[in-house]
Amino acid sequence: MAANGKMSTGNEMVVFKTSEGDGPKYVKDSPRDHPIVIIGAGDYGRSFAGRLVKTGFRVVIGSRDPERRRPNVPEGVVVTSNSDAISRGKIVILAVPRDAYSDMAELRSDLTGKIVVDVSNKEKLDTEKSNAEYLSEDILDKSLVVKGFNVVSAWSLESGLAGGSKEVPICSDDKEARGEVIQLAKDMGFFPMDYGCLRAARDVEAIPLHLLPGWRFATKVMFGLLAFMSLYVLFQGPLYKYVKSGVTKDIQHFPGKGFNRVLAMLALTLLALVYFPGIIAAFRQLAYGTKYQRFPIWLDTWLKSRKQLGLLALLVASLHAIFSACLMSPEYYYHMYEMGPVIEGRQFYGMMFWRGELLIFTGGLALALMSVLGVTSTPSVQNAMNWREFVFVQSKLGFFCLFVGTAHCIVYGSTGFNKMYLYVWYTPPPALLVMLLPCLIILLKLFLLSPCLNSRLMRIRRGWESKPKATSV
Amino acid sequence: MAANGKMSTGNEMVVFKTSEGDGPKYVKDSPRDHPIVIIGAGDYGRSFAGRLVKTGFRVVIGSRDPERRRPNVPEGVVVTSNSDAISRGKIVILAVPRDAYSDMAELRSDLTGKIVVDVSNKEKLDTEKSNAEYLSEDILDKSLVVKGFNVVSAWSLESGLAGGSKEVPICSDDKEARGEVIQLAKDMGFFPMDYGCLRAARDVEAIPLHLLPGWRFATKVMFGLLAFMSLYVLFQGPLYKYVKSGVTKDIQHFPGKGFNRVLAMLALTLLALVYFPGIIAAFRQLAYGTKYQRFPIWLDTWLKSRKQLGLLALLVASLHAIFSACLMSPEYYYHMYEMGPVIEGRQFYGMMFWRGELLIFTGGLALALMSVLGVTSTPSVQNAMNWREFVFVQSKLGFFCLFVGTAHCIVYGSTGFNKMYLYVWYTPPPALLVMLLPCLIILLKLFLLSPCLNSRLMRIRRGWESKPKATSV
Amino acid sequence: MAANGKMSTGNEMVVFKTSEGDGPKYVKDSPRDHPIVIIGAGDYGRSFAGRLVKTGFRVVIGSRDPERRRPNVPEGVVVTSNSDAISRGKIVILAVPRDAYSDMAELRSDLTGKIVVDVSNKEKLDTEKSNAEYLSEDILDKSLVVKGFNVVSAWSLESGLAGGSKEVPICSDDKEARGEVIQLAKDMGFFPMDYGCLRAARDVEAIPLHLLPGWRFATKVMFGLLAFMSLYVLFQGPLYKYVKSGVTKDIQHFPGKGFNRVLAMLALTLLALVYFPGIIAAFRQLAYGTKYQRFPIWLDTWLKSRKQLGLLALLVASLHAIFSACLMSPEYYYHMYEMGPVIEGRQFYGMMFWRGELLIFTGGLALALMSVLGVTSTPSVQNAMNWREFVFVQSKLGFFCLFVGTAHCIVYGSTGFNKMYLYVWYTPPPALLVMLLPCLIILLKLFLLSPCLNSRLMRIRRGWESKPKATSV
Repeated sequence: MAANGKMSTGNEMVVFKTSEGDGPKYVKDSPRDHPIVIIGAGDYGRSFAGRLVKTGFRVVIGSRDPERRRPNVPEGVVVTSNSDAISRGKIVILAVPRDAYSDMAELRSDLTGKIVVDVSNKEKLDTEKSNAEYLSEDILDKSLVVKGFNVVSAWSLESGLAGGSKEVPICSDDKEARGEVIQLAKDMGFFPMDYGCLRAARDVEAIPLHLLPGWRFATKVMFGLLAFMSLYVLFQGPLYKYVKSGVTKDIQHFPGKGFNRVLAMLALTLLALVYFPGIIAAFRQLAYGTKYQRFPIWLDTWLKSRKQLGLLALLVASLHAIFSACLMSPEYYYHMYEMGPVIEGRQFYGMMFWRGELLIFTGGLALALMSVLGVTSTPSVQNAMNWREFVFVQSKLGFFCLFVGTAHCIVYGSTGFNKMYLYVWYTPPPALLVMLLPCLIILLKLFLLSPCLNSRLMRIRRGWESKPKATSV
Repeated sequence: MAANGKMSTGNEMVVFKTSEGDGPKYVKDSPRDHPIVIIGAGDYGRSFAGRLVKTGFRVVIGSRDPERRRPNVPEGVVVTSNSDAISRGKIVILAVPRDAYSDMAELRSDLTGKIVVDVSNKEKLDTEKSNAEYLSEDILDKSLVVKGFNVVSAWSLESGLAGGSKEVPICSDDKEARGEVIQLAKDMGFFPMDYGCLRAARDVEAIPLHLLPGWRFATKVMFGLLAFMSLYVLFQGPLYKYVKSGVTKDIQHFPGKGFNRVLAMLALTLLALVYFPGIIAAFRQLAYGTKYQRFPIWLDTWLKSRKQLGLLALLVASLHAIFSACLMSPEYYYHMYEMGPVIEGRQFYGMMFWRGELLIFTGGLALALMSVLGVTSTPSVQNAMNWREFVFVQSKLGFFCLFVGTAHCIVYGSTGFNKMYLYVWYTPPPALLVMLLPCLIILLKLFLLSPCLNSRLMRIRRGWESKPKATSV
Repeated sequence: MAANGKMSTGNEMVVFKTSEGDGPKYVKDSPRDHPIVIIGAGDYGRSFAGRLVKTGFRVVIGSRDPERRRPNVPEGVVVTSNSDAISRGKIVILAVPRDAYSDMAELRSDLTGKIVVDVSNKEKLDTEKSNAEYLSEDILDKSLVVKGFNVVSAWSLESGLAGGSKEVPICSDDKEARGEVIQLAKDMGFFPMDYGCLRAARDVEAIPLHLLPGWRFATKVMFGLLAFMSLYVLFQGPLYKYVKSGVTKDIQHFPGKGFNRVLAMLALTLLALVYFPGIIAAFRQLAYGTKYQRFPIWLDTWLKSRKQLGLLALLVASLHAIFSACLMSPEYYYHMYEMGPVIEGRQFYGMMFWRGELLIFTGGLALALMSVLGVTSTPSVQNAMNWREFVFVQSKLGFFCLFVGTAHCIVYGSTGFNKMYLYVWYTPPPALLVMLLPCLIILLKLFLLSPCLNSRLMRIRRGWESKPKATSV
């Protein structure tokens, strides 16, 4: 309870932060008893030093050439020789590139017993041992090596942690050393995450090399479908007409009318693909009589990509709504409009048929439901819901949305299903093709909801009843 | 600071996680000195064991029939008899259904002094004592019973905590036991929340049975208004015409044109209902001269549902915008368009009147403002704002939005307010009906902003000046 | 491990919370050994007491006139004299207005060694010392003064912390006292943030007076551009025609057609302004050969406002899409439509040219990309991305979005660039004016991407190569 040494400076000047742009401000009045040591006066080292100084720490930078004039060292930071710097502190941030690790062997005895933080990154994903393991096992085997801060860029350190995640994974074989660095990260304004022992450094060093891995499957599926559907619509309509009668008019209407049809097909198919894998998984569980049979990799990936598929479906459906609203006129969708007088050989139109209005009604409803699904899948909204609410929204509302979307497709296409001239080149019209999958899914879902199947599935999902299988020995 | 026993295994095999799909990965190199004991080798028990193993704990499962072949026990987990399992650990997870609690009495002496975690749930909401209290008071009165993890599903445990909230309420009468389980939950990757003493288990067991309780009032209001307004628009327009002259055309235009009118009425009314309870509360506080008079329950519920009402208003208004954009043509909204030539008895139209363009202007502005209000009411954005900013956006911008929305309604309806043939069956036209409430709210708000009332209200809200009332004795 | 005193009451009644509307519920069964003391029975004091009681603390309120009947003191709270209240506790919440601080001098000896929490706020921003420093230095120099809770309103305390941020900055020169108050804030359900020593109270007291400081630059720019562009479109079109030929028709079409043009110009310019400062910064770094030369303030502010500019661009672009969808008809955008027959001197139109459809295609694509950029800039989504993903989305996708938006503008305007009658009053038509900036930015970006410049810039950004400059001594 005694007044603590707010100004317990040694011979180094200590800079206290007073104001710093945006984000939370952490000011320490009691820096650790020892300054933080940074080896390497390069860009990262100086940025790290700047962040430490801003949050109230004393910092010593070790350099091979401490006398060199360095204009960008933060105020209050002492630059000295490597050995001298290390002798002053307990925690040493090793801000040198991976290539220079072998040079660190000469500091091996100086660093004995010190906490050495490896902040390095790899250039590309490989299966070799991590930089941190190499450092710990081959170079500084007498130091307590901690992996951390590699996910933080120099730019982020300088600009007050804006942009990118604030989560900082930290791991080490030494529990106390790890705890010290976790506390350091907290004090600097990060959210440290304990990744355990140093072997996890392989995962940690892979993180900054990821590029939206969860989105890979869904985006590939979307662009694949986009290409296929664009070609289908192009061939089945404008190109067919050009081949048969030399008419180029429909090709000119591809960027608007044709592409809007592609968007509609894509949105419905993506939405259907959100609910398909769950149906497959359910039938699989029913067939094997257990939920403990592992899913094959493709099904597992698909199940994990449902959220991404749904969000892409929402994006495409919104675009479809904007396109449709821009193009909605009798010139474009004449079969939805009541016919008016024919004047000088030109057909004029009135309001829509009830079919056209139903089209707008179902489309609007489906879009509204998809928006609700999209909002509830954001991390912050999702974290505020319990399991029952999450299932209610994503499963019940979601299936209702698929149902309404399919109705929208049927209302649109049903005027043409019986017109044989639309079945060109032995292919069905796009609206018919695209409604098959959602209709199948809805039928299978209804089948699963039948009392005997449903109760069996519920029992399997609770795990209480699984048939002993010869396969599971 | 000594190297800690990363591999301090007993006779059980310990499995260390190396990689796990998505989400943060927690690997413990120093499992607690004792393994975690799980009583019950059912679905939940095994899922819990799997999660524990993944995060680096040693686990022993106790079962009545430990010899039975169980294919789905996670690798490295020992299955043994209940008594033997309990003797090995300090923390015991009781993964048996509530119905089997009476059988636990035989383990009473084994469990003496142990931390017993009750993870059970109720089937439905009731007013009886919680499962945890029953266990603590009637069965295992010598154990330290902790309630926790009941909000976590087996599926969530297996699939890396994806979906649903990560918040785990934990309560117990024993503070140290609670602290141990809170630490365990943290280590497993959850966000534990200290709910205090075991009596709170009644609240905790109610959580998974909730289904969006905060949305109940707002959705009821919305669907009630939707039904009323649909009937009003249907009777006042299409049905009236059918009764009077046998015309069915307007009934066919209900899904598009009629429903769009319903959406417009609904959006404006929902938005008005966001700001109405605040006005009522202000007048109530002025009348009673104090802010400490409790609001009646209906007003309190209403005040707490304002955010939900606003988000529903945004959803409905967005739908109205899409519908309007699709239908916006002289055939539908002829009184907004300049008249062109009459050809063969058919009236053609040109561009819009300034009134029609003003309609789009006000509608677009109101929608943009509502979008801003909606975005700022999401948890993550809201958490980044201070009180003054929150009030500025939600109150000032919000009232401006209501004002613009009302202007939009007046611009639309004002062409018809003086046309007596729209007042059928002694009812006003929909646009007139629906603008009454927001106009009233705006007038009352202006009245409240008058200097003498406003300063009195401010004083009351600061709590400094409250008239002593006979009623409050 | 012994059963702790759940009911360790003294002579005061302790109220335990059982249920409380919404939000997390914290119930303490072991209140601190001493009750929390609150000086001041006003609004804030009673609200604070209510929150403390709800979370399981014992509370004593000190008042000058403890005998006065106070109807709104929470149940279980003792009201007594100031001295008596202070003698019972260790933590004292000073809930009196700043003006009454001088009266606190009489409690100076009573408060010796106590933790005194200053919860006051300033009326307006000034440069004087903070209330907390004044209290600590001039009034209660023998107490351990802690600043905290000033960001929390009485209303928020009463209504279960709904609305506004839950982050509570806390600072004090005494580390232990600060730690105690941080723990208290945690127990009350807040997220305390350690701001360090009491000097930081100046920043802390400024927080509630902020009004969206990060948005100031972007909103000013937006409204400035809005005013300029509105006047430009008004003068260059409708007013010019009025002056030249007395036609007022175009003025009547300003709220719809004219304003939609303003929205389009504004959206594209705002989007361009997101990417312009980065280009300027890059050329500046190339020119100086270092990244350590500080940016001038205007550039720094601009760089920090890019997110806000981008979100405003998205809002304006969405409005433009709604407006366009409502107005999209040959009467409004005749040069995008194929000509049909002329009947009775009136020109009728058919479908769009490919140019019109391309307009919708590019506009829709740009809007979709901007939506993705907007969603990924929300705090909760952003926190789930690593640095590489953030850069990929915000830089690569963002530039592609600017490119598509510029193409949209060129497709629209290119029909008129060669029509000299559009260059009225020596000014270019709006579409030409507004495409200059994005075209310039795209050219400069391409220039920067040329191998020699790009590799030099990359080196400068890594910080490895900075020319020693005379300027940086």
